[in-house]
Amino acid sequence: MAFVNDHYLKLAAGYFFPEISRRIAAFAEANPALAGRIIRCGVGDVTEPLPRAAIEALHAGVDDLARRETFRGYGPATGYPSVREAIARVDFGSRGIAIGADEVFLSDGSKPDASAFVEILASGLPGDGGNRIAVCDPVYPVYVDNNVMAGNTGPALEGGGYAGLTYLPGTPENGFVPEPPAEPVDVVFLCFPNNPTGAVATRAQLGRWVEWALRHGALLCVDAAYEAYVRDPAIPRSVYEIPGAERCAMEFRSFSKNGGFTGVRAGYTVVPKALEGRARDGHRVSLHQLWKRRWATCSNGVSWPVQRAMEALCGPEGQAQMRALVDFYMGNAAILREACAARGLRSWGGEHAPYVWVACPAGLGSWETFDLLLSKAQLVVTPGAGFGRMGEGFFRISAFNSRESVVEAGKRLAALG
Amino acid sequence: MAFVNDHYLKLAAGYFFPEISRRIAAFAEANPALAGRIIRCGVGDVTEPLPRAAIEALHAGVDDLARRETFRGYGPATGYPSVREAIARVDFGSRGIAIGADEVFLSDGSKPDASAFVEILASGLPGDGGNRIAVCDPVYPVYVDNNVMAGNTGPALEGGGYAGLTYLPGTPENGFVPEPPAEPVDVVFLCFPNNPTGAVATRAQLGRWVEWALRHGALLCVDAAYEAYVRDPAIPRSVYEIPGAERCAMEFRSFSKNGGFTGVRAGYTVVPKALEGRARDGHRVSLHQLWKRRWATCSNGVSWPVQRAMEALCGPEGQAQMRALVDFYMGNAAILREACAARGLRSWGGEHAPYVWVACPAGLGSWETFDLLLSKAQLVVTPGAGFGRMGEGFFRISAFNSRESVVEAGKRLAALG
Repeated sequence: MAFVNDHYLKLAAGYFFPEISRRIAAFAEANPALAGRIIRCGVGDVTEPLPRAAIEALHAGVDDLARRETFRGYGPATGYPSVREAIARVDFGSRGIAIGADEVFLSDGSKPDASAFVEILASGLPGDGGNRIAVCDPVYPVYVDNNVMAGNTGPALEGGGYAGLTYLPGTPENGFVPEPPAEPVDVVFLCFPNNPTGAVATRAQLGRWVEWALRHGALLCVDAAYEAYVRDPAIPRSVYEIPGAERCAMEFRSFSKNGGFTGVRAGYTVVPKALEGRARDGHRVSLHQLWKRRWATCSNGVSWPVQRAMEALCGPEGQAQMRALVDFYMGNAAILREACAARGLRSWGGEHAPYVWVACPAGLGSWETFDLLLSKAQLVVTPGAGFGRMGEGFFRISAFNSRESVVEAGKRLAALG
Repeated sequence: MAFVNDHYLKLAAGYFFPEISRRIAAFAEANPALAGRIIRCGVGDVTEPLPRAAIEALHAGVDDLARRETFRGYGPATGYPSVREAIARVDFGSRGIAIGADEVFLSDGSKPDASAFVEILASGLPGDGGNRIAVCDPVYPVYVDNNVMAGNTGPALEGGGYAGLTYLPGTPENGFVPEPPAEPVDVVFLCFPNNPTGAVATRAQLGRWVEWALRHGALLCVDAAYEAYVRDPAIPRSVYEIPGAERCAMEFRSFSKNGGFTGVRAGYTVVPKALEGRARDGHRVSLHQLWKRRWATCSNGVSWPVQRAMEALCGPEGQAQMRALVDFYMGNAAILREACAARGLRSWGGEHAPYVWVACPAGLGSWETFDLLLSKAQLVVTPGAGFGRMGEGFFRISAFNSRESVVEAGKRLAALG
């Protein structure tokens, strides 16, 4: 009988969103009169229609497939050059960053990319052929789970986390932006603007990470899925705004939260040509080449209509429409931040990010707060415990919702007894 | 500096399609007057527009995303229930096969699935924690490369292939349908109708594979991407037509070659609930559960408009239109088979498959034949050597082309000096 990947068996029971769904369903069943009042500010999923430019490009892409003369079959595994060029120009070149079109790899989203990128790195525990891996805590759980499944960790620990991973605590004291660790680490997963805390790294903070990574030969895997929410020009939107980052960092990008593509599925990674790792025998290996090889073998690229939509979002109309969409969600975030303040809840984020990170009322754990908000105000939030040990004592409110629901959620928050 | 996945470095230089492209470009440059005459029967990529039902569903899916009331964000990682139900009903239930909707996992194609499925199995060489893995030879190279990248093989061997893999030779003598091996094997990759040979397994042959797998506790990974090309009811279109297969086989399915979705990207896997592997400590583990967990962690599902198109192809109009499309390519295949016969070339396949597998003229290797066909007839075929050691001495002609090009290719083949 075939051996399975034993590392999967280390995964702590279930992804935590199913548990949230279970509790909501149980509440709705026990309180049918209140079920209709529930407002979901849990999962960070967009609610508004796609930008017009994306809709038109999707339709045009479908029409291409309806006619023999314009039909597209297999495309390049890493995306059509025109789309990659548009992204390199609009997301980087226009901001003075030298990223080549062939350093942009199109995908169907950051979640699959995060899983796939782990594949091109060595697997195993540190000391047993693997890398010393660090993640922030709290953290988007996918980064941890992928490393568990790849065999890069030991077993799950009592109280959260996995043996063998280095956790970098994010706390109110450091503004949820950990400094580089003193201990040696090979690979670090960072996320700015942060999910779940909404924290952003200043240019100085990100500069210290890049300087540290270059000095120690560490690889930074930077999730910038929420970069569109940064409006202050002093705050970097890409790690490549820091000189030298092309030699120590790859970046995950998404069209989910700026273009509203959570159901369309589109993202990209930047893996610069200068980025290297090392083989077991010590010789340097281009991570760009390995990533390219992975795409050639494991994918036939992204759906043609979706690629046309990505390109359309890089045009002037697409950019303006995306900005309006992000502005809308930022307006929601401001309402939620203010409601927390009105209620005397200490909160972070929500200024350059669509998430507000809130300290639980004194004496309550994050699941207790979840249950309280659900039962007393019919508000669904995400308990911080789901994001790691350091998430305990906090909860996340998502700004992805209709204005009407957010205004109502804000009122209920502010009025909480 | 981060350690890379050293197994990637074992991969023999490049996927072979780039070499084909290089030779075509070189010929065209050296012979500009003949460049316009080149007919490509190499890569198995569809050429005809999508079925009307798919186009309409794609447009409708895009319109859903343009309106708040019908907008879809994140969907279930494994696909919307209605789409999975339609597939289970139309592709299996209607043929008397009991596959549950929740045993159908939607994806963006078989190539990514083939890579991802390897992840849920143990990695390593046999004897070192890994599985004993067998592939047919000739073989679709992706199955081999994924196992190399996952660390399931030794180094590349002189003359083709990788150490540690068990190769099952397909020859004219066995009709390119290998029998189960005498030696113990844990995982076997099979493909019927076969790419590249066009061979199909009879019910008796597939029955022997299932019986053997159940007896030895082996796992069959069956690629049925070309099942729509089987028209003889005596020939199985799915491994699940064999009783007991749900306990020893998973199946890869694609919308690429029946619905023409190579550029749309859609496929699915069937992983029955009864399918098990074993953990290192010997206890049985549900492969269905591991696969489900993999999807939850590594994906946010398939693009909404694409899922609507999959469902539309399961409707009566979609089914009729797909059948017409497959009929068209089958007509092409018949022309190519007849041309080979007229020229006295021995060929296989092309009857229940869109590929014709042809023995090279006496004394010529497969790359020599490639060069000959390109220079003398401006026909591009795929050299058999690209599919493994046993592919040497053969070439593959793809029936995916316009009727006009196929008729012309047939004439040139038949007229070859």
